[in-house]
Amino acid sequence: MSKFVYLFKEANQSMRNLLGGKGANLGEMTSLGLPIPQGFTVSTEACTRYYEDGKKINKDIEKQIFEALAETEKIVNKKFGDNSNPFLVSVRSGARASMPGMMDTILNLGLNDEAVVGLAKQTDNERFAYDSYRRFITMFSDVVMEINKSNFEKIFDAKKEAKGIELDTDLTAEDLKDIVEAFKVKYKELKGQPFPQDPKEQLILAVEAVFRSWDNPRAQYYRRMNNIPYEWGTAVNVQSMVFGNMGDTSGTGVAFTRNPSNGEKALYGEYLFNAQGEDVVAGIRTPKPISELEKDNPAIYKQFLEISSKLENHYRDMQDLEFTIERGELFILQTRNGKRTAQAALKIAIDMVEEGLLTEKEAILKVEPSQLDTLLHPQFDPEALAKAEVISTGLNASPGAATGKVAFTAERATEMAANGDQVILVREETSPEDIEGMAVAQGVLTARGGMTSHAAVVARGMGTCCVAGAHEVRVNEEELFFTVNGKKYKEGDYISLDGTTGKIYGEKVKTIEATVSGDFAKLMSWADKHRALKVRTNADNKRDASQAYEFGAEGIGLCRTEHMFFEGTRIKAVREMIVAKTVEEREKALAKLLPMQRQDFIELYEAMQGHPVTIRYLDPPLHEFLPTDKEDIIDLAKDLGITFDELNATINELHETNPMLGHRGVRLSITYPEIAVMQTRAVIEAAIEVNKKGLNVVPEIMIPLVGELKELKYIKERVVKTADEIIKAAGVELKYSVGTMIEIPRACLTAEEIAKEAEFFSFGTNDLTQMGFGFSRDDAGKFLADYYKKNIFNEDPFAHVDQRGIGRLMQMAVEDGRKSRPDIKLGICGEHGGDPRSVEFCHNIGLTYVSCSPFRVPIARLAAAQANIKNPRK
Amino acid sequence: MSKFVYLFKEANQSMRNLLGGKGANLGEMTSLGLPIPQGFTVSTEACTRYYEDGKKINKDIEKQIFEALAETEKIVNKKFGDNSNPFLVSVRSGARASMPGMMDTILNLGLNDEAVVGLAKQTDNERFAYDSYRRFITMFSDVVMEINKSNFEKIFDAKKEAKGIELDTDLTAEDLKDIVEAFKVKYKELKGQPFPQDPKEQLILAVEAVFRSWDNPRAQYYRRMNNIPYEWGTAVNVQSMVFGNMGDTSGTGVAFTRNPSNGEKALYGEYLFNAQGEDVVAGIRTPKPISELEKDNPAIYKQFLEISSKLENHYRDMQDLEFTIERGELFILQTRNGKRTAQAALKIAIDMVEEGLLTEKEAILKVEPSQLDTLLHPQFDPEALAKAEVISTGLNASPGAATGKVAFTAERATEMAANGDQVILVREETSPEDIEGMAVAQGVLTARGGMTSHAAVVARGMGTCCVAGAHEVRVNEEELFFTVNGKKYKEGDYISLDGTTGKIYGEKVKTIEATVSGDFAKLMSWADKHRALKVRTNADNKRDASQAYEFGAEGIGLCRTEHMFFEGTRIKAVREMIVAKTVEEREKALAKLLPMQRQDFIELYEAMQGHPVTIRYLDPPLHEFLPTDKEDIIDLAKDLGITFDELNATINELHETNPMLGHRGVRLSITYPEIAVMQTRAVIEAAIEVNKKGLNVVPEIMIPLVGELKELKYIKERVVKTADEIIKAAGVELKYSVGTMIEIPRACLTAEEIAKEAEFFSFGTNDLTQMGFGFSRDDAGKFLADYYKKNIFNEDPFAHVDQRGIGRLMQMAVEDGRKSRPDIKLGICGEHGGDPRSVEFCHNIGLTYVSCSPFRVPIARLAAAQANIKNPRK
Repeated sequence: MSKFVYLFKEANQSMRNLLGGKGANLGEMTSLGLPIPQGFTVSTEACTRYYEDGKKINKDIEKQIFEALAETEKIVNKKFGDNSNPFLVSVRSGARASMPGMMDTILNLGLNDEAVVGLAKQTDNERFAYDSYRRFITMFSDVVMEINKSNFEKIFDAKKEAKGIELDTDLTAEDLKDIVEAFKVKYKELKGQPFPQDPKEQLILAVEAVFRSWDNPRAQYYRRMNNIPYEWGTAVNVQSMVFGNMGDTSGTGVAFTRNPSNGEKALYGEYLFNAQGEDVVAGIRTPKPISELEKDNPAIYKQFLEISSKLENHYRDMQDLEFTIERGELFILQTRNGKRTAQAALKIAIDMVEEGLLTEKEAILKVEPSQLDTLLHPQFDPEALAKAEVISTGLNASPGAATGKVAFTAERATEMAANGDQVILVREETSPEDIEGMAVAQGVLTARGGMTSHAAVVARGMGTCCVAGAHEVRVNEEELFFTVNGKKYKEGDYISLDGTTGKIYGEKVKTIEATVSGDFAKLMSWADKHRALKVRTNADNKRDASQAYEFGAEGIGLCRTEHMFFEGTRIKAVREMIVAKTVEEREKALAKLLPMQRQDFIELYEAMQGHPVTIRYLDPPLHEFLPTDKEDIIDLAKDLGITFDELNATINELHETNPMLGHRGVRLSITYPEIAVMQTRAVIEAAIEVNKKGLNVVPEIMIPLVGELKELKYIKERVVKTADEIIKAAGVELKYSVGTMIEIPRACLTAEEIAKEAEFFSFGTNDLTQMGFGFSRDDAGKFLADYYKKNIFNEDPFAHVDQRGIGRLMQMAVEDGRKSRPDIKLGICGEHGGDPRSVEFCHNIGLTYVSCSPFRVPIARLAAAQANIKNPRK
Repeated sequence: MSKFVYLFKEANQSMRNLLGGKGANLGEMTSLGLPIPQGFTVSTEACTRYYEDGKKINKDIEKQIFEALAETEKIVNKKFGDNSNPFLVSVRSGARASMPGMMDTILNLGLNDEAVVGLAKQTDNERFAYDSYRRFITMFSDVVMEINKSNFEKIFDAKKEAKGIELDTDLTAEDLKDIVEAFKVKYKELKGQPFPQDPKEQLILAVEAVFRSWDNPRAQYYRRMNNIPYEWGTAVNVQSMVFGNMGDTSGTGVAFTRNPSNGEKALYGEYLFNAQGEDVVAGIRTPKPISELEKDNPAIYKQFLEISSKLENHYRDMQDLEFTIERGELFILQTRNGKRTAQAALKIAIDMVEEGLLTEKEAILKVEPSQLDTLLHPQFDPEALAKAEVISTGLNASPGAATGKVAFTAERATEMAANGDQVILVREETSPEDIEGMAVAQGVLTARGGMTSHAAVVARGMGTCCVAGAHEVRVNEEELFFTVNGKKYKEGDYISLDGTTGKIYGEKVKTIEATVSGDFAKLMSWADKHRALKVRTNADNKRDASQAYEFGAEGIGLCRTEHMFFEGTRIKAVREMIVAKTVEEREKALAKLLPMQRQDFIELYEAMQGHPVTIRYLDPPLHEFLPTDKEDIIDLAKDLGITFDELNATINELHETNPMLGHRGVRLSITYPEIAVMQTRAVIEAAIEVNKKGLNVVPEIMIPLVGELKELKYIKERVVKTADEIIKAAGVELKYSVGTMIEIPRACLTAEEIAKEAEFFSFGTNDLTQMGFGFSRDDAGKFLADYYKKNIFNEDPFAHVDQRGIGRLMQMAVEDGRKSRPDIKLGICGEHGGDPRSVEFCHNIGLTYVSCSPFRVPIARLAAAQANIKNPRK
């Protein structure tokens, strides 16, 4: 039988995975000689066993728990259920990662009809003893037995009413005894058996309840939001109770060793005299700032300062402590690395280097890359936010805060913005035609689509706040309103979106602008010094490219040329091209696009100042450029000078059952090589033009959706022929390269062949994930909800590179690609290029660069540095 | 410089890949001492170089050609362009695989104004010489210079008219001289330069023309139909001319060493005296049966008999010979293994074993497995077929011949069939609702969809003839007619389909029934003795299962349970299940399906006589069970007792952008585990029932579309719990297993994990191909046409397992799956299970069985035997 239960004195910091953060730290603090109420931890492995055994604690684990209990009784010299010196414990969850408030806690466990007498004797305070007992019964019944608290609250309130009193504290010991009796009667009535009097039985039931709480809906949600695997499980800490509510020499509080809002180096926190932890949290009494403890009890304050400083130095990180003072004696209940704002994280990391507490590399590892987002986007004013009502929640698709008037079409959004209004664009889902409306909007809300839907991807690229896939929102695009949970919002009504949390507010909420401090620049400069991966950006226009350049992008890793095709005059030429019946007609339409496309590239090259620019050739299925609405089709037919039937026939012909797996990417170029030829002209002519002005652009031409060497070869031949002719005619020297996106599983499987023609690979992990999993990102949202609920997935499979499956394909492609072209340039340009965990993976498999949306560039820089510090590249 | 040109005397049989079949055999026959007009072969590698060099023959190859020419001149003792003893040659293509009629031939090359004089002298026949010259000018201009023949025919006919004669043979030598002059003038007029007089220039131009013809549209088409890679290229054979048209002691003919129609052992063929090969083929004069040669020229006949017998013994296969007799001297122009009917193939193989010419294993290798198809399906009467007009061609989706009246809906097809009509069901594309109509139809024609479309897959399963994806056919399903190339066909009009060739005939064509001979049974028994792979069938009903059992299936590898859900009373319960709002409602609807589903399985188990039966749980997206038409929705809503809006909302909710990558397979079971529970009840209860009657069924439960271990685990837990409860309650012993389809790329990538729960893997290579390539089989047809035209693909990527890409995934899954479960059962149940090339691959990677549609079972048995003979399994 393995060991499932550990006394605090057997534990230490390194046992976090086994004992959870709380348990490991209680062990560590015990060995540091700090005043810790003793106890033991039931391991996370016991939790896993509990679930494997069909939600039962097996007899061996129970035995180990009772042995640890007996040991602890000896240490604290108290006895479970004793009527003179009873041993009471708290039972609390403690997972590997901190999950504040997500799981359950039971205090005062061990009380029964005997022990309560003992507690009264021991504390010489009968009222306190019975108050503790009634609290315990309520908490145990609620958390362990799933009896609604209101059953007990009614009895309690009835007693107060009967006695004509208002404050709980006015109840006497006798009143509380009556209440306890009434509670026990109620309990029996509801459960059919008496309230358990055996403290050991209470303990096992409580441990089971904590294990069970690992899988409650709010824990599931928290895990998914924070990428915590279900498999980790939670540990359970059984700790002897100390009481902060034993009179005026007792108290309880929480404190941070530095200010978690701004990072200033000063003890920060609050405490309450004569109170238990729950009182501080519940907010019934207003706690005092921790600084006042110095006046109230200078000795304890001094001791606390020493301990907190010792812990910060020991853990080399800002600590978040819970403490209790029991009759003048200080106890530390837990310590953990404190949560902090991005601003504080930067300041603390930098200060600690200056203080000599951390090296630069260590400081880099202390800042969570994804936190940087909040520094770059507007946020809500916290005060205003506290008052605002959440009407629904969607996916936190693109961070930031936005407030504005609702618009339901891109056209209306543009008009309203032109009138000086702040606008929130609300759509069932967006399509490329909505780009302009998205660009002028403060935020975008969609009812359908996931984290990599069109709305999400484009909004992130623009740095625009977006809440996507808000399933409760029902959009009526014809009558211009949406409803959510029975409420109706019309065009012009105010709503607000929090793209960082996914919350939707039905009103105007004040926002505050983003501010970037000097600390940010300093940390970024350190990060750049320590990373091996290059960081590029995905950008299709001057604005995004310049923004990304400011954020430190070292080139463009993905320019989606189709985004350039939707603007007014262009879309017409694109549509002429689509309805063309001959190559000549098609070339005529393409000739109209050439000068515009060339100008686009000139602007991008200039924004990137000579850094590499990767241009992906036309990718989406052509039907995306055509209208679907009958009236729009009639208008367009007129415009194009063809009949409705003709145009409609073209649209029907382009219809696909599964457009995701249809006629797009390189497949378009194979049918219409003249498109690739036009794009090549634009790429090369633009490069020649800017290089004349002194830049040294080396364009990278990227062919999408290749799954077979010959596809690439066919197009590359035409690209090279076109490019070389232009270069020769211009009489200049110009280098360029031709590569491919690796986004089809078969491309990974045949990478050795493809690398014979491809001068670079850029992983398109969105599509690779879609095809590798067989999940359409437009559709999967609906059934993935069941996957989360049933713990089949812990998280959105599109959120991070799936290392076990899709990552294996990537690794094959990297290894095989290098076999035929050892110096092949390897990048990633899917959404994952800005996800810290995926960036680490890309570093580890040896990519050359990652490319991400402009606002994620700093995140990627930091993540790349962390990856290289953890696993330095030779 | 490599060697690109080989004299016949340098070549032999083993050089087929390099020199093509014709070249290698001419070499072999030369070394056997047979009378072969000498010459040389330009290799297939030269063809590859020709294309790589931008369709030019490089100087080195040209030099080698001229050297070989000089050598040959020495051997035959003639001179190119000589005015007394000119050397003339034929220039013919010859690829690795025989491609009769697909590429071009040029005869009499070497004639010019000088050589024609020489030829006249040499043959003492001026008329013959000029007739040869005018033929050469026409053929060279047509084949090499792309000048339409009609230009010359007009001149020729004008001369005849001017002379008032009818027969070509009435033209005199002088007339022909005039004609030659006029031809040369015409040539210069069209080409701007004189007809090439340099025989060496003629030769190089001709060789280039043959290389060019490798990529002409009819060669492309032939290659695709016969799986011949573009990369192989063709060789060119330059052979000295011999003339069968030099008078009555000359002649030409073709012969088979056995009868290619029925396999009888007797020389079979025909010949013509005083004629060239083209006359035999053109059919202007009626040739005599070869047997008459014995009377006409017993010595030559005897010599020919000896040679043909020698060649058959040498090649150990039936030979197809071309010969020419020049002034009493016999020459063999080529030999090759003869094409033959399936019936002949069987007889020849078996006879040759009896004759001691072949071993059993060798005989097995001589029969093309895919040929067996024609033995099992009705065929057209060849005479009737010769007269019928082809109105269009689609994909040869399911073999056989069918004739009947057109019906446009499954309902009408059923009604018409009930009235005793033979019916052809014509649809834009079929859906599962059409099953009944397909079952009663003689044949199915669809305008859309590929080789693995619904229509194709289901028709093959039923053994029903099907032509799919006939793009020229425009179906008007509302007004009940279709048009094709301007012609209109209404309900009730007769059409005929050839599912083996894809041809569509606009009339009734007489069919003849399939006949299976004793030879078939004998060869199959040999095949069974020599194979290692088991062969199962894909079948969903008693009829198909019994059919497959007769054809030798050793179990069912795939029962698609959804096919059982479309019948009248069932579809209603299925729909009730879909619109159910609660688990209870859903279970109520499922309870109605249970007895029917149980009965289905009883029938299948019984049909399979205790052989294993693999049952795949519900797979398709639920929207496939709901109507799309407004009126049908109204009707159904009434039927289900809900409002139109409610039903419509459900339908809209089920709509998916990419249903292929949507909510189906195991994903359905995760959302609605009660479906899997009901199916488990049916599977297990049915097995208990039939086992009571003495069978020993071990059901195999197959979960589709698994991509992650936990998906399978979640469902397996419920399946096992349900099954074990039923078995326990019944008080019986029953074994069963639970496995999964491997059809998602990620399943292959994580096979080691999945095998921890899966007791068997069955590769679903249709979906694996779709996702691995990123090709939707419903949509790819449209753009794949361009892929064939541009030689990016040689063949439909769904036709055979793609060994370089998808096959690599399969191999990973096999190896990794065995790591965690060494005795895992491995099968394939995609369409590829009946494709000989894919069967060989499955054998080579170590699968346990293949499963295919009933009519492909014999094909798979033979292919499995061939695979094991070539690469014996230890």
